[in-house]
Amino acid sequence: MTEPIFERLVLIGVGLIGSSVARIARARGDIARVVVANARTEATLARVNELGIADVCEIDLVRAVEGADCVMLCAPVGAYAALAAAIGPHLAPGSIVTDVGSTKQSVIRDIGPHLPQGVHFVPAHPMAGTEFSGPDAGFVELFRGRWCLLTPPPGTDPQAVERIKMLWERCGASISVMDPAHHDRVVAIVSHLPHLIAFTICGTADDLADETRKEVLQFAASGFRDFTRIAASDPVMWRDVFLNNREALLEMLARFTEDAQAMARAVRWGDSSYIEDKVNRGRKIRQALLDLHQA
Amino acid sequence: MTEPIFERLVLIGVGLIGSSVARIARARGDIARVVVANARTEATLARVNELGIADVCEIDLVRAVEGADCVMLCAPVGAYAALAAAIGPHLAPGSIVTDVGSTKQSVIRDIGPHLPQGVHFVPAHPMAGTEFSGPDAGFVELFRGRWCLLTPPPGTDPQAVERIKMLWERCGASISVMDPAHHDRVVAIVSHLPHLIAFTICGTADDLADETRKEVLQFAASGFRDFTRIAASDPVMWRDVFLNNREALLEMLARFTEDAQAMARAVRWGDSSYIEDKVNRGRKIRQALLDLHQA
Repeated sequence: MTEPIFERLVLIGVGLIGSSVARIARARGDIARVVVANARTEATLARVNELGIADVCEIDLVRAVEGADCVMLCAPVGAYAALAAAIGPHLAPGSIVTDVGSTKQSVIRDIGPHLPQGVHFVPAHPMAGTEFSGPDAGFVELFRGRWCLLTPPPGTDPQAVERIKMLWERCGASISVMDPAHHDRVVAIVSHLPHLIAFTICGTADDLADETRKEVLQFAASGFRDFTRIAASDPVMWRDVFLNNREALLEMLARFTEDAQAMARAVRWGDSSYIEDKVNRGRKIRQALLDLHQA
Repeated sequence: MTEPIFERLVLIGVGLIGSSVARIARARGDIARVVVANARTEATLARVNELGIADVCEIDLVRAVEGADCVMLCAPVGAYAALAAAIGPHLAPGSIVTDVGSTKQSVIRDIGPHLPQGVHFVPAHPMAGTEFSGPDAGFVELFRGRWCLLTPPPGTDPQAVERIKMLWERCGASISVMDPAHHDRVVAIVSHLPHLIAFTICGTADDLADETRKEVLQFAASGFRDFTRIAASDPVMWRDVFLNNREALLEMLARFTEDAQAMARAVRWGDSSYIEDKVNRGRKIRQALLDLHQA
């Protein structure tokens, strides 16, 4: 069998993403010899133990990272600074810290300063998810055919990057390396803004008069159903994502709002060709997506 | 076999909806003895003929409606006034005119005045659709388990309503009768606004700098993918829907925009609990939808 990439992989957080990595690592055997799970609550860790998806379950952060050659943060990004501060002094030289957060500039800002000399830092963002969360939600196919974006800061040890790349490849993902600021803008439009919109429109509907609201639920056409699917995601995770990708998200929301207002104006004044043009652009992007997917 | 509801059902427009009704009527035999298809272009009608989904294909509107006891308008709602004006004088007393448009006040405004005394008018809105259009897109299961909303104006003959109800029940739909103005508000939030948003965000993404746009397509997470699925719908149909449900759509967009701006403010000022609350409401609505669906 192929040698495992790591001796001891520590997952800090075992929700949808962390528990999927744990399941894959245990199933394959070529990612880590020992998989250690750490969670914020005893209840989560007890569930991980029941599921049998980690070799070691350790509630104490410091004991969890002892002897680790790879520590992967799988908690909401708002918790990263405190986690990094707590584990920093206990990390072994030559070990790698990585993460799975959806924002990358904030992660570099929050984790970087807490890591001692000789510890490598490879920020990563596996672009996969479902509307479910917690250790029961994970599954081994989660990352198959999905992208994992790596945003190593300048000067990061290429061998450390290579090992994290290999880890995600063995999880089934395709890898792309990009600049953290660029990453944050791209995900702001493809993921964070759509989620903000979906959460918002659910609230808008919920605020309607009682009678209408009941019928909103009853007659939800496919349009609204898709929005609520997106909106069913984890609140703390998304709160942290929004707060930690503030600039890019607000910029994309401002652009979108301008465009929505222009559409409203076209509807109000009956500008048919403007509306048709916008609908046609939507179709064009859709087609480009399909073409890329098939390519 | 059960007696057909109608002797001669004329479908004006044979796109996704019209061609699905044609397929169902031909497959079941208990909806109409003869199914007549009319389309705006010779090419569409030739395709309908090739597909063999109608008994009669007739490009001339007046000849198409001759002897019909039911005429169903399945064209974009913006074409209804002209269609009604053209067929009005040729409709037989006692026959029923119905439609499948997504806006109901405009339909009553545009069709009503053109119908002679003794012709019944039963506006209907089958809430079903896919991102595909044209006569090839239809299929017999399209309406199964979906809602069809009827909005008969006051004084409509109850027997005419009953026959249209029966037609849609035989197509597999559940029926709800409601006031046209109320209908327009409900669909504005559950369907029209989500589509307007989806078309808009695709344009916003398309306007980004070239390098980002390429990556938007490449890394489109599930959030954006769902939006483009909605956005792949028929441009003329949606243009007409937006223009003919102007008031309700603009009101819902204004409400949504206020809510999105409130969310933007919370993101800018780091109001965690506001954001979490909004995300939680999204989950709640999602759960209510699931509960209703299972009920």
